[in-house]
Amino acid sequence: MALVKLVEESEAQGLVAEVYQDIMTSRKLAKVPNYWKALAHQPALLAVTWERLKTVMAEGALDRRTKEIIAVAVSATNNCDYCLHSHTDALRGLGLGDAELVELMSVVDFFNGSNAMASGLKVEYAAPVPMAEEGQPERASTSKEGN
Amino acid sequence: MALVKLVEESEAQGLVAEVYQDIMTSRKLAKVPNYWKALAHQPALLAVTWERLKTVMAEGALDRRTKEIIAVAVSATNNCDYCLHSHTDALRGLGLGDAELVELMSVVDFFNGSNAMASGLKVEYAAPVPMAEEGQPERASTSKEGN
Amino acid sequence: MALVKLVEESEAQGLVAEVYQDIMTSRKLAKVPNYWKALAHQPALLAVTWERLKTVMAEGALDRRTKEIIAVAVSATNNCDYCLHSHTDALRGLGLGDAELVELMSVVDFFNGSNAMASGLKVEYAAPVPMAEEGQPERASTSKEGN
Amino acid sequence: MALVKLVEESEAQGLVAEVYQDIMTSRKLAKVPNYWKALAHQPALLAVTWERLKTVMAEGALDRRTKEIIAVAVSATNNCDYCLHSHTDALRGLGLGDAELVELMSVVDFFNGSNAMASGLKVEYAAPVPMAEEGQPERASTSKEGN
Amino acid sequence: MALVKLVEESEAQGLVAEVYQDIMTSRKLAKVPNYWKALAHQPALLAVTWERLKTVMAEGALDRRTKEIIAVAVSATNNCDYCLHSHTDALRGLGLGDAELVELMSVVDFFNGSNAMASGLKVEYAAPVPMAEEGQPERASTSKEGN
Amino acid sequence: MALVKLVEESEAQGLVAEVYQDIMTSRKLAKVPNYWKALAHQPALLAVTWERLKTVMAEGALDRRTKEIIAVAVSATNNCDYCLHSHTDALRGLGLGDAELVELMSVVDFFNGSNAMASGLKVEYAAPVPMAEEGQPERASTSKEGN
Repeated sequence: MALVKLVEESEAQGLVAEVYQDIMTSRKLAKVPNYWKALAHQPALLAVTWERLKTVMAEGALDRRTKEIIAVAVSATNNCDYCLHSHTDALRGLGLGDAELVELMSVVDFFNGSNAMASGLKVEYAAPVPMAEEGQPERASTSKEGN
Repeated sequence: MALVKLVEESEAQGLVAEVYQDIMTSRKLAKVPNYWKALAHQPALLAVTWERLKTVMAEGALDRRTKEIIAVAVSATNNCDYCLHSHTDALRGLGLGDAELVELMSVVDFFNGSNAMASGLKVEYAAPVPMAEEGQPERASTSKEGN
Repeated sequence: MALVKLVEESEAQGLVAEVYQDIMTSRKLAKVPNYWKALAHQPALLAVTWERLKTVMAEGALDRRTKEIIAVAVSATNNCDYCLHSHTDALRGLGLGDAELVELMSVVDFFNGSNAMASGLKVEYAAPVPMAEEGQPERASTSKEGN
Repeated sequence: MALVKLVEESEAQGLVAEVYQDIMTSRKLAKVPNYWKALAHQPALLAVTWERLKTVMAEGALDRRTKEIIAVAVSATNNCDYCLHSHTDALRGLGLGDAELVELMSVVDFFNGSNAMASGLKVEYAAPVPMAEEGQPERASTSKEGN
Repeated sequence: MALVKLVEESEAQGLVAEVYQDIMTSRKLAKVPNYWKALAHQPALLAVTWERLKTVMAEGALDRRTKEIIAVAVSATNNCDYCLHSHTDALRGLGLGDAELVELMSVVDFFNGSNAMASGLKVEYAAPVPMAEEGQPERASTSKEGN
Repeated sequence: MALVKLVEESEAQGLVAEVYQDIMTSRKLAKVPNYWKALAHQPALLAVTWERLKTVMAEGALDRRTKEIIAVAVSATNNCDYCLHSHTDALRGLGLGDAELVELMSVVDFFNGSNAMASGLKVEYAAPVPMAEEGQPERASTSKEGN
């Protein structure tokens, strides 16, 4: 059970009712997700957080699928139950199955591991030095691949 | 300065020299990144970690760009200097500029925040209930969007 | 179920019994909280940890309520179930209701997010430069507001 | 050096210039803090994040000082350099000195430690049972003190 | 319930079946632990991860018991349920009882706390200066004890 | 530079001077490590924290070397600069060289990774089922090896 009471749709008034309506309409949902029902104890916070989520998740250089993948990667690193369920459901709705989710998580796993190794040994980064192409000298440059 | 001496290319022998060669060839680099030079104190570890990275970063359902984005998202959440530099450089090599990096980081920011809110209030997840289409009853279902 | 057996009040002897008595007396409790019953497998650890908690939570420049708020902020960031329940209960005992808890958590949310953004982009801090008051030159100074 | 170029005041236009002006006016600063200059690559994100910070840090049930204390507690737990400098400076501007900062950090230290103990041993929480007052039976209740 | 279906022993084929067999034989188990059944959606990942675990956990300068202790210390810091159960069970199999587990966790607790204090106050490290032995000058040196 | 002034040996009085003396004597140091000089702004905190460290690091079921290894494992997971330097120095004083430190860190790396995988997919733990010995039925039991 949540540590605060959830503000149900039937109790919503004013700004809270407006945001609830916008969430349901833009997400095509019949019920407001519980996350927002907790925030609703602070109506101005609810409104500005919802506004910010719309800004953050809008299609830009990164598409919706990539952004949901980031949400899952962050939530796995932080071990957030609610968020893992919510964004894994979203990715399934976008067509990812078990094999794709494990592929995603293998990247999350690798870098959580190598982050601890690199930080733990305090390895210093040096810009990659690409292999000289024939007849050309080596030079420091931006590589296309990390690590 | 790293907490362990780096094993330089000129010092590499046997398995270490082989892995170093594979790293440089497959990444088109003239020098081995420092991360691998730290691992080289344990040659078998170096070899199997490099093998695992190749498996993890191979193009699959998720492409290379998406996987580098996950690497940056995880590294920002863990605050790993080496990895942030390395994978931001990789993303720049893949064409992302300042605006795209900030867009990426805004998603990382949002979910690090909402993870703390959802976990901190112990909000329980409920499967999304999609809006009934005309003439159809509501039913629990997999939404295309999280939160 | 806890990964170690809890040392019940009826089993407590010597130093453990003394600390249990002090916990119950100073907190006005009829039962020792489970956290301490786990530590009791190491009596010296139990005693010095309880002593340290009393020192840390004593009223000083920060009052008890502020310290319980910090406890909740840290526990939400680390996603610690036991501690979230325990310190949220404490804050409710001190008069905070749902709206106040969400207000508290909104600050925790904001800074968990902005921490990832600032660290992820490796933004460098510069001391704030206050607006020149009329007839006065600008100077670097300590602002009253962060970010 | 930040991983993205900062958008300087002299380069700001339109929405970015407006938000920069609001930051400087409301904070009485002659320069925009670097954090916002990084976000400015995404003007809509800059605007909604600044709006959200104003909402979150507004005086409510918790005052400004308490909210800056939470910011420091979260930033210490996440080890965010920028944020530790920024919000420690803010607390000094609000009158906290070295002794108070160490007092604050001792609470952060204690709960980061006990979070790991409680989670690591998976200790289960039980609602506190207050000592029976004379002539009254014991009952489960909300205590005023956590742990 | 896991967010992906587990690949049961009866469904395993080819590389997955080979790895499952190796896990059961080398660990003397009649069933494959669930962790590996989740990874099995990506057979190459399963194989290289199992290979890496064998490399990492092999007796070297650190013995098996010490490595399981590290596993528990990391899992407590990250609050990973599965891993805490798994590696606490392993340590019990190696002879650790309740008192030893609490002793282990007290070290994890202390350093999770002092990490936050040291990082939060940004205390700078200075190499330890050992006490001069009689008739000898002091010199900077490597101490045998941290903090 | 630390965010608080350090209390130097020459400034120490009363309880602080006593603890400083105990630190230097028991650790055979000519100077007090900076960590303690920061805590000294709160003399009672300094004293009880030092007392607790002595309790926690005392030889018990786990020896000093194992406890320093745990300190490094936790500090790498939290990315604490001060603590990594301090406890790596301590381990070098106890005889660990580069190869051993990388071996240690490989375990830290593996479990930071697998923690994220197990938590991210919410894999449920099941007690290991040992292979039936000849003529004996299988039974759930405590294995000697995790994962």
